[in-house]
Amino acid sequence: MQTRIRGVLAPVVTPFKADLSPDPQRFVAHCRWLVSQNAGLAFFGTNSEANSLSLSERLALMDALLESGIPPARMMPGTGCCALPDSVELTRKAVAAGCSGVLMLPPFFYKNVSDDGLFRSYSEVIQRVADDRLRIYLYHIPPVAQVPITATLIERLLKAYPKTIAGIKDSSGDWNHTAMLLETFQSQDFDVFCGSEVFLLQTLRGGGAGSITATGNVNPAMIHDLFCHWQSADADALQARITGIRRAFETLPLISALKAAIAWKRNDAQWREVRPPLVSASAEKARALEESLAGLGFDMPGL
Amino acid sequence: MQTRIRGVLAPVVTPFKADLSPDPQRFVAHCRWLVSQNAGLAFFGTNSEANSLSLSERLALMDALLESGIPPARMMPGTGCCALPDSVELTRKAVAAGCSGVLMLPPFFYKNVSDDGLFRSYSEVIQRVADDRLRIYLYHIPPVAQVPITATLIERLLKAYPKTIAGIKDSSGDWNHTAMLLETFQSQDFDVFCGSEVFLLQTLRGGGAGSITATGNVNPAMIHDLFCHWQSADADALQARITGIRRAFETLPLISALKAAIAWKRNDAQWREVRPPLVSASAEKARALEESLAGLGFDMPGL
Repeated sequence: MQTRIRGVLAPVVTPFKADLSPDPQRFVAHCRWLVSQNAGLAFFGTNSEANSLSLSERLALMDALLESGIPPARMMPGTGCCALPDSVELTRKAVAAGCSGVLMLPPFFYKNVSDDGLFRSYSEVIQRVADDRLRIYLYHIPPVAQVPITATLIERLLKAYPKTIAGIKDSSGDWNHTAMLLETFQSQDFDVFCGSEVFLLQTLRGGGAGSITATGNVNPAMIHDLFCHWQSADADALQARITGIRRAFETLPLISALKAAIAWKRNDAQWREVRPPLVSASAEKARALEESLAGLGFDMPGL
Repeated sequence: MQTRIRGVLAPVVTPFKADLSPDPQRFVAHCRWLVSQNAGLAFFGTNSEANSLSLSERLALMDALLESGIPPARMMPGTGCCALPDSVELTRKAVAAGCSGVLMLPPFFYKNVSDDGLFRSYSEVIQRVADDRLRIYLYHIPPVAQVPITATLIERLLKAYPKTIAGIKDSSGDWNHTAMLLETFQSQDFDVFCGSEVFLLQTLRGGGAGSITATGNVNPAMIHDLFCHWQSADADALQARITGIRRAFETLPLISALKAAIAWKRNDAQWREVRPPLVSASAEKARALEESLAGLGFDMPGL
């Protein structure tokens, strides 16, 4: 049986060229560094600006990554789109490539949709992909998608597709919700990842699988260290340090902050580019972030 | 100078086959009927399940419609997507085909984005399409997109692109908001369409251009009648009748209700199909809708 992916995964930020087209070279280079730091690649996530990319751009970036020689077992691409055929095409490609799983947003345009409709949505993807190797991690991120994945829906999906529904990323930002997921579904071979490493220690103590987290893009080694040593005496101190770095990034819009830090550490200003509707951090704000990160002893070793 | 489109437009509902693929034959047939009833075609809107369609499906449906011989001057397709290249491609195609304008959602995945980011988003599309014939109608629908188009943003866009920014569809559901738009921007050659015909009479009395409305799919003639005779003595009575029919449709999720009514009047059950995450109206609920509509004297003449 295939071992499921665990630990720290980064929703890989997507670099853009000056004309706003995705940059496969910078993308693969960043992925290589992440893997060297023991982070898995949850590319095409919220922090990847995946929904700001066309389907063909996503397929081309995935091809570049697959051709890089990085093991697909370290990959969990986001494949949940508003349009069923897009979700199916991306999911099929991920499964065929041997990715460890896919992280699947619900269709997010319509609000207040029924669990029946969401069940139907996941169900159609599963049946159309029709591959026993498919492992779906549900993506619960109500602050952004505004379409929650309820416990009732999870229960129903697990009952219908016990081998396929492998877990969830909980980006509710609410620890009580993550705790509920851990308590309710842990016995059913359902892996819970917290959506921010701020909750990593609590998640691991509750039996969770790790964290799929924005800041995994910039601070993977330290977060991975906590994942490995969560039972050690200094785990709480390490969590506090990790949380402090996270909070520094959160003083700016997160995606712009991550890119500003990568641009800084790689000495490559092009990394600051984001696609509309986002805006890059101003030089002034980027400078302030650098100072506060330097004060926290933040580094991106191996760059 | 090109005359701008006014009056009643329907966000054309998209028919699906049993395998959930879009059905160009039924789509064109419905469009022909709408045009025969004096409704313009705001296809690829919210009620069209446009965001549940892939880009290639949208391009194919647009081709089918353009080949039908219906004048593109009656068309205002929705072209606003989350991904910039998708918005550009659809908008380019619409302009090249001679459509009267495009109805453009803001990118709707990220929430709480800045006016700077949204301005940049519209601006990039306008500059990339780079065609003097482009007329953009902004699409304000905060209950669904959750990304509002503020008066400040409109002002800024009008200043930068006075000929291109042609108007707005206000689907806020809040008459005070529509009234504010009419008062603030009317002097700037900016056409305000209400997003529900419930506000049509008020909109026209305030100097607005018409209504782009879901129920335009099923009750276009009566709504067009009010558009033509809004200054007549019986305008309020007609508005009340139109509103009554709208309210009957609103007893079900609107898209399912519209499709159920078309299926009923065309005697074609396949019309009831919707794509996930939506669900079709049950036979029982469809029956109840038919009864309540029949009681209101509702008809779709000419089918």
